[in-house]
Amino acid sequence: MIALKNDLLLQALHGETLNRPPVWMMRQAGRYLPDYIKLREKYDFFTRVQTPELACAITLQPVDQVGVDAAIIFSDILVIPQAMGMTVLMEENKGPLLPQTIKTEADVDALITGGVEDSLQYVMQAISLTVAQLGGKVPLIGFAGAPWTILCYMVEGKGSKSFDKAKQFCFTQPALAHKLLQKITDITIAYLKAQAAAGASVVQVFDSWSGMLGPADFKLYAQPYLLQIADALAGTVPVILFPKGSWYALPELGASAAAGIGIDWTVPPAIARSMAGPSATLQGNFDPAKLLAPIPQIKAEVKTMIDAFGTSRYIANLGHGILPNVPVDHARAFVDAVKEYGT
Amino acid sequence: MIALKNDLLLQALHGETLNRPPVWMMRQAGRYLPDYIKLREKYDFFTRVQTPELACAITLQPVDQVGVDAAIIFSDILVIPQAMGMTVLMEENKGPLLPQTIKTEADVDALITGGVEDSLQYVMQAISLTVAQLGGKVPLIGFAGAPWTILCYMVEGKGSKSFDKAKQFCFTQPALAHKLLQKITDITIAYLKAQAAAGASVVQVFDSWSGMLGPADFKLYAQPYLLQIADALAGTVPVILFPKGSWYALPELGASAAAGIGIDWTVPPAIARSMAGPSATLQGNFDPAKLLAPIPQIKAEVKTMIDAFGTSRYIANLGHGILPNVPVDHARAFVDAVKEYGT
Repeated sequence: MIALKNDLLLQALHGETLNRPPVWMMRQAGRYLPDYIKLREKYDFFTRVQTPELACAITLQPVDQVGVDAAIIFSDILVIPQAMGMTVLMEENKGPLLPQTIKTEADVDALITGGVEDSLQYVMQAISLTVAQLGGKVPLIGFAGAPWTILCYMVEGKGSKSFDKAKQFCFTQPALAHKLLQKITDITIAYLKAQAAAGASVVQVFDSWSGMLGPADFKLYAQPYLLQIADALAGTVPVILFPKGSWYALPELGASAAAGIGIDWTVPPAIARSMAGPSATLQGNFDPAKLLAPIPQIKAEVKTMIDAFGTSRYIANLGHGILPNVPVDHARAFVDAVKEYGT
Repeated sequence: MIALKNDLLLQALHGETLNRPPVWMMRQAGRYLPDYIKLREKYDFFTRVQTPELACAITLQPVDQVGVDAAIIFSDILVIPQAMGMTVLMEENKGPLLPQTIKTEADVDALITGGVEDSLQYVMQAISLTVAQLGGKVPLIGFAGAPWTILCYMVEGKGSKSFDKAKQFCFTQPALAHKLLQKITDITIAYLKAQAAAGASVVQVFDSWSGMLGPADFKLYAQPYLLQIADALAGTVPVILFPKGSWYALPELGASAAAGIGIDWTVPPAIARSMAGPSATLQGNFDPAKLLAPIPQIKAEVKTMIDAFGTSRYIANLGHGILPNVPVDHARAFVDAVKEYGT
């Protein structure tokens, strides 16, 4: 194992007292970076994801070019439906498309749940390669989609404004929904453990659509599976849960085995702290669109954000993925402002 | 003025003690009703909106067929950009399109702000006609879009996942954004007063995209204009503000001149009550997708919802517009469950 030269992210997740928080950005390896766009012109989406050398090169770009305190492996949450035997198509600048959706018990029974170390071996190879190339410069974050969010895509077949087909599936066939969620949870735990074994220092679970659920349905269809994942990884690597939009669940998630909880930009820091409790490390929550503001305004608002969250038990990040139309120097200003905090 | 036979909605907004809350549904006059679909096949969207007899007929459908305690005039929030001189196109089953968007000060200066009583006279005619046809059966609700949400469409030109162009407009040209928001506010106040004069008993302001703003930006770009509207209408008709997603603003809105505050289905009732304070009437917040659940489940969850909100200072509604794929008997079950509460 390579010793980390910059382990601020791990210190923040362990609750150590820091002078400034670590900083990274969701989707930092991606569409706003000119070098990424060049690779995108040459290789299609799943070629980029499935070729360890390409995934590694893309992962390293923001570390070198923007100066973040952590890398996150370039991949996609929909590799799990693929590993479970479903077809996933990805058109550039459009969303994903799963032509055969899950409707019946037979569909759920046909899903593959084993062998993820083999079927997604390319991810583990990309992680090993990236960790070697990083040489301890910063930690590498692995990730997966949360079971509810993966169910959304499996049932809906694509993005949606309301994910009402996914919800209808749960509301009308709850036993089948739980069977599916458990299958996704099992393979996701194996997948995240394999990522940790390959060298990921931290893993994040993206529940991008959890905020579509009201509090009672979140407790039924999202929370138990997030907690299972946090419990299963405890003692392996720190887990960050990011249930976007589900501010109402902060007390339960803050008391869970997860080391960190991501929050979106609509949650006031003081309310987040009070709801999540003293032992949770919070991550977020700069409005991604605020990176389109003039640089002095970005810097001033980053300072306000850190003033509100404090420098310990806190990871500076956006409240959602970086937008493709953000100028690179604005992304860099965000990172710089965190690094300059208190100096 | 015609005396109301059913004034539960007004009683709830006045804070009177009730045995059950009034019930209506956002978008209740619309796409889930077979009789609406028949009219849609014969007349395009703006013909339906601009022909008082058609708007009236559509408005009355859910009163007769679903049994709601209030009608809401069939119209669209984008009649205000039209009245201000912008072109708005509407394709069925797609969103709106505004081909010339607002970019510069000259664009803002060119907007019309006067004469809304004339330019939107068809709305006031539809209201008068509907009030006459209702004959006091239930009150009629008028409505408008909130200034921030109207700005979103004017600047973005269409719907968006993140409304980052609208936000960028505000963040990079704040003085111009405020000039535009004030213009929209002024015409909206005149418009809502004209709706009240034509016979609307209550008006609702839809801030459909306010939840795209973080708390600090909501306070800058949404809240002041919502409060101006509530203040300007105070003493005329009760105002319901519905800032979807902006649960964080409940304390300020609850203390405002607005009679009612709409909340979406992600806000737990006890938290909403505690944040909004004792004098606010809350409206909501059934998950629209929950109307796709089996009828016994709908009925049980409606009871749970009213148990949590209480029967006074509360208006039973959905947390957002009814989905087009909801069976009519499920919508009726929702309304019936509210009416059966406590019996």
